[in-house]
Amino acid sequence: MPARRVITLLTDFGCQDAYVAAMKGVILGINPEAILVDITHDIPAQDILAGALVLAAAAPYFPPDTIHLAVVDPGVGGTRRGLAAKCRNLYYVGPDNGLFALAWASDESQLSIVSLSETSYFRTPVAPTFHGRDIFAPVAAHLSLGVVLSAFGPPLPDPVLLSFPHPTFGPETVQGEIIYQDHFGNLVSNVRGKDLLAWLTGGTCQLEIGSQTLTSLQRTYAEVSAGELLALIGSHGYLEVACAFASAAQQLGSAVGTPLLIRKV
Amino acid sequence: MPARRVITLLTDFGCQDAYVAAMKGVILGINPEAILVDITHDIPAQDILAGALVLAAAAPYFPPDTIHLAVVDPGVGGTRRGLAAKCRNLYYVGPDNGLFALAWASDESQLSIVSLSETSYFRTPVAPTFHGRDIFAPVAAHLSLGVVLSAFGPPLPDPVLLSFPHPTFGPETVQGEIIYQDHFGNLVSNVRGKDLLAWLTGGTCQLEIGSQTLTSLQRTYAEVSAGELLALIGSHGYLEVACAFASAAQQLGSAVGTPLLIRKV
Amino acid sequence: MPARRVITLLTDFGCQDAYVAAMKGVILGINPEAILVDITHDIPAQDILAGALVLAAAAPYFPPDTIHLAVVDPGVGGTRRGLAAKCRNLYYVGPDNGLFALAWASDESQLSIVSLSETSYFRTPVAPTFHGRDIFAPVAAHLSLGVVLSAFGPPLPDPVLLSFPHPTFGPETVQGEIIYQDHFGNLVSNVRGKDLLAWLTGGTCQLEIGSQTLTSLQRTYAEVSAGELLALIGSHGYLEVACAFASAAQQLGSAVGTPLLIRKV
Repeated sequence: MPARRVITLLTDFGCQDAYVAAMKGVILGINPEAILVDITHDIPAQDILAGALVLAAAAPYFPPDTIHLAVVDPGVGGTRRGLAAKCRNLYYVGPDNGLFALAWASDESQLSIVSLSETSYFRTPVAPTFHGRDIFAPVAAHLSLGVVLSAFGPPLPDPVLLSFPHPTFGPETVQGEIIYQDHFGNLVSNVRGKDLLAWLTGGTCQLEIGSQTLTSLQRTYAEVSAGELLALIGSHGYLEVACAFASAAQQLGSAVGTPLLIRKV
Repeated sequence: MPARRVITLLTDFGCQDAYVAAMKGVILGINPEAILVDITHDIPAQDILAGALVLAAAAPYFPPDTIHLAVVDPGVGGTRRGLAAKCRNLYYVGPDNGLFALAWASDESQLSIVSLSETSYFRTPVAPTFHGRDIFAPVAAHLSLGVVLSAFGPPLPDPVLLSFPHPTFGPETVQGEIIYQDHFGNLVSNVRGKDLLAWLTGGTCQLEIGSQTLTSLQRTYAEVSAGELLALIGSHGYLEVACAFASAAQQLGSAVGTPLLIRKV
Repeated sequence: MPARRVITLLTDFGCQDAYVAAMKGVILGINPEAILVDITHDIPAQDILAGALVLAAAAPYFPPDTIHLAVVDPGVGGTRRGLAAKCRNLYYVGPDNGLFALAWASDESQLSIVSLSETSYFRTPVAPTFHGRDIFAPVAAHLSLGVVLSAFGPPLPDPVLLSFPHPTFGPETVQGEIIYQDHFGNLVSNVRGKDLLAWLTGGTCQLEIGSQTLTSLQRTYAEVSAGELLALIGSHGYLEVACAFASAAQQLGSAVGTPLLIRKV
């Protein structure tokens, strides 16, 4: 396994402090050939669902053997376990709190997880407030050097599940909700595009959100006029509500948690 | 051409989502030796002029053969063309909407542009909402591997012009306006430093903005007292209004669009 | 000395403009093998103390021979000197204004500093407003190629001291204040953890801030309930006031400058 491997970083640490840099310094001290790529450090503080969604949206675009190091970790210093995992041809390192669940979804058959217990791969002493720097970063770096997964600890057969607000599929309607608002004000729902298309079986639908009704699914922002709302399967793979050349969140006064209703027509 | 080449990224995608990381993952999957450098992802949404200005301010500082990948792309998924270009010894990839115009200004004689039509260099299927990931990123990556420009498509002889609010040069006055506000609250105008100095032919000028009159051009922020306004040719190459140790934008209550008047004295 | 060395960047330039990218382009033009790592560019504008604190919190986690390039530089273009330094096994480049003082603290015996005067290592002409690009970036890049410190200029024996608000240690109390607020709203004080523990000589203390009294030091955020305030020695190495799963700054209505009182109990 070559040492020149990509390690991505996703956290809720923000970019103003020394936290992310300390993690990168630790990694480069162990593997100076690691290629570090930030996914984001702007996950809302301790929002595991948002972290899981963004990670799942970025992870599959990276080359085989990439190591995705993710830390959104409200339980740091408590009893939650740390994990390293391989799912298909990608690796994951971080807290065992559901953060990786969407990245692994539907690939569970190709998933191996270990619980991080082999302390010789940690920085010591481990600061109780900063496992990102003292446990997860060094484990990711050693993994990038070719250390095998099983060296880091025993199998972890029962990873913590993500608390995900699943939509309700009925015969004529789907009840969903907004779970993420992106930089452009696009509102990403909990309704997966492929589940929606399977449910529609080639038919069409309308979508109700707030006081608005959107009468069809579009393929692209360019299909409607500026300022007009539209529904489409976005690049996260979920149904989203967008607004051409503007913010749907602002236009609708909606945010994470807003319900939406899809109706067959 | 070596594979170890710099690819810069400039977008209006922000840093909170997976969009930028997905582009980087795609690039590294094609050329793992690419050196990725962010210019910025905080261009105001769909503000082509701001993107053009920041790109032109950063691009020339990079080494020969750098590839500047820029995506501020309100027309994504519509009929606007994609382009790859070489201008002097730098390369450019992105939408054909004027975004590169300031980086290319005054070097048009050393400019070759192609229209991106060779789909074998794209990720497939191309998502209609995300050409950054599916067209521009892979084209930039293949370019970094040494694929020649002409392989990506036919010449594009008529690139879309940037809608730039040109200043009005009269015999005694120049009428300009503020086109960009930087992180420090410095107000960058549309009056190019070298045009202004040519017009002044060694003389001096005063500058009126809002209710303020600035009586000379300074060379550096340190030439005035804290809180004092000053005019200078900034590092973008344009006349700018700054405020020592403070924000000129806040001090003046001014922003993008504010007119300014320069008078010979 | 190998050319493949880490250069970190810390500035108050923000990430929206071309300034940081221009510095990176200059570095890569001189040493294409440099490994660039951002510490942060979100130091509050011209806040040397915040810059010093964040730099000191990140610097020691990087591998030997890392070059820390830092620019928080209210005096740019005036008479302040530029410096390059080696402290233990790390290098530093930037303005001589106290920015490096905390990173060097207690290692003064292993510190060599030179004043940057050898202009052949600068970009020319040097823009009076942007020494980061034209002096500090190229000096850091040449340093990464193995140029020895003494080549950049004569010894600088009297670096400018950081204006640091030292706490007052009495027999029964310590009077301190908040000097930094991090991304999570944690409030970092000017009381160094190791000084506090030495003063406590194994005893316990309580801490008063605003109208609140915290009755002990915790080791980790997980030791108190959600929304509860706690005091701990944070990862900056200073006493800090945090709030489990929330912002202490918001909870207390406190910010940089708020006094705190520690009492032996």
